[in-house]
Amino acid sequence: MSRNIIKFKNKPSIIGSASVTGKMESEGPLNRFFDLCSGDSKFNMDTWEKAEAEMVRECAEIAIKKSNLKHEDIDLSFAGDLTNQCAASTFGMKDKKIPYIGLYGACSTFALSLGMAALSVDSGVCNIALGEASSHFCSAERQYRFPLEYGCQRPPSAQNTVTGAGCAILSKHTGSHPSVIEFLPGIVKDFGVTDANNMGAAMAPSCADTVIRYFSLSDLSPDDFDLVLTGDLGYEGHNIFLSLIKDAGIDLENNSDDCGKLIYDTNKQEVNSGGSGCGCSASVFCGYIMEKLKKKELKNILLIGTGALLNTGTVLQNESIPGISHLVRITAED
Amino acid sequence: MSRNIIKFKNKPSIIGSASVTGKMESEGPLNRFFDLCSGDSKFNMDTWEKAEAEMVRECAEIAIKKSNLKHEDIDLSFAGDLTNQCAASTFGMKDKKIPYIGLYGACSTFALSLGMAALSVDSGVCNIALGEASSHFCSAERQYRFPLEYGCQRPPSAQNTVTGAGCAILSKHTGSHPSVIEFLPGIVKDFGVTDANNMGAAMAPSCADTVIRYFSLSDLSPDDFDLVLTGDLGYEGHNIFLSLIKDAGIDLENNSDDCGKLIYDTNKQEVNSGGSGCGCSASVFCGYIMEKLKKKELKNILLIGTGALLNTGTVLQNESIPGISHLVRITAED
Repeated sequence: MSRNIIKFKNKPSIIGSASVTGKMESEGPLNRFFDLCSGDSKFNMDTWEKAEAEMVRECAEIAIKKSNLKHEDIDLSFAGDLTNQCAASTFGMKDKKIPYIGLYGACSTFALSLGMAALSVDSGVCNIALGEASSHFCSAERQYRFPLEYGCQRPPSAQNTVTGAGCAILSKHTGSHPSVIEFLPGIVKDFGVTDANNMGAAMAPSCADTVIRYFSLSDLSPDDFDLVLTGDLGYEGHNIFLSLIKDAGIDLENNSDDCGKLIYDTNKQEVNSGGSGCGCSASVFCGYIMEKLKKKELKNILLIGTGALLNTGTVLQNESIPGISHLVRITAED
Repeated sequence: MSRNIIKFKNKPSIIGSASVTGKMESEGPLNRFFDLCSGDSKFNMDTWEKAEAEMVRECAEIAIKKSNLKHEDIDLSFAGDLTNQCAASTFGMKDKKIPYIGLYGACSTFALSLGMAALSVDSGVCNIALGEASSHFCSAERQYRFPLEYGCQRPPSAQNTVTGAGCAILSKHTGSHPSVIEFLPGIVKDFGVTDANNMGAAMAPSCADTVIRYFSLSDLSPDDFDLVLTGDLGYEGHNIFLSLIKDAGIDLENNSDDCGKLIYDTNKQEVNSGGSGCGCSASVFCGYIMEKLKKKELKNILLIGTGALLNTGTVLQNESIPGISHLVRITAED
């Protein structure tokens, strides 16, 4: 194939998953789908960065346990996050003694790690692979924006970085678990958006690009899917995305949603345009969506991880914010 | 396989490579092997960060051209660097419209991207893949340590971040190019080193771990290799590495070298313990080593990328510096 959809013939199964979140996420509508929530988002640590690493560690621990496996059964792990040099993933995974590949895809990282873990199992280079992603509101806020103590106000288009981690364990096809059957890596798209408080707008065009490429390469149509789930465009970005693909003749008005819209109750929680951060799609998918796939309430879905590729320096140097969106297709059918 | 060496049965070929460096590297002993050197390390840009991105862009451009290919022929690209959120790779690759997977492995990133590109070609998910890594002394120095204007003095154990990029293009086996035939992903190892001015010491144990694992899993012995090339431990770290593996019964005194030792002339250039940064092993491999493989002066080598997994925050919070080392085996034999 050449730039086609990567099709996993051996249909790697997601044999276990876990999601761990912070306080605010536990107060949202998906609370009962999370395996563990930290009441103060600190995970018994004395800094926010250590708290995020601990969340990564615990999330992987729970996912491995729920899959009835031990550390030594995992052949390869893929993980990434938003902290500089992906330190939360490194420090979270460092004592597990599992071969480790660090990924960076901003908020698209969970879909990317799921795709890469599936590829490594499908190609036969390993039996069991782990894919994880995380973010923490407090470590992200002070790294990207302002000290938390400053209490900065944010515009309605801004999203709230989710304190959360999600981890999935992939194995050879079992027949009884949801399977990852396709993967379409994203292409970096720069549409010249420069507003660091409107990530949804920066990411929506790349999300549209990946979805348009997918349907142009696939035999399937939007109606073949129970859910086309983006993560995390938020309210603002998801509307832009739906409008962009409608212009391209793809109608997902009735079967698309966004992890950033699902994770909080915007009537009660002050989160502006919804959730964001690698941990948003990771925790929503590994908790809520996996539950629906296991119960076959969802049978055929697309997960499109969307990332905004900036750092504090690129914004200060007046660079635009490119986006990237990686797509994975998951089925609950045997 | 389970945690075994990943063996590439289809022997993906490195059909082209390029290396681009800065001024100081062009004044070193490997000058004639670099495709392009910027006389002021600025690459005609007005910030060091933009200079690094431009270096990434030009390096990929040259590698694609030397492989007689066009952008649209590349099915998948893997890249990473040391800047926060891997921005140099993103901005360097963003206008090429090539599917893109961001990697983070600190200074081990080039070996990692070579391994992942080889895996994607070997498994048949793409025909042509690109692997790249970069670093820039000036963007790294002011991000990790002090403003350049401060003129900070550094201890003898410190390494000099290389301004350089290396890019390799992988395709199906051709029979006439060097091939990547094995890949052993690293395991994060934390030996409690906390001195951010002695990365060699932080990385050497993880490098020894990967090499010891390799020889315990392989039928081959150290004598089967013309060169076991680490990158980048520098003088300090390479000595520690040789001593650690000697303790484990592996003698590489006569056939091991380090990219951080090769790239500068330490008699004439003030670089303390040698070179470091993703761009060091990337530019040394894609220039000097590829030339020797093509001429069959080297026939069977191991490249072990070594990374120190820290950020400025982990150092300030008194965390230790874990290391990771990814190994690839390259052969010039058909």
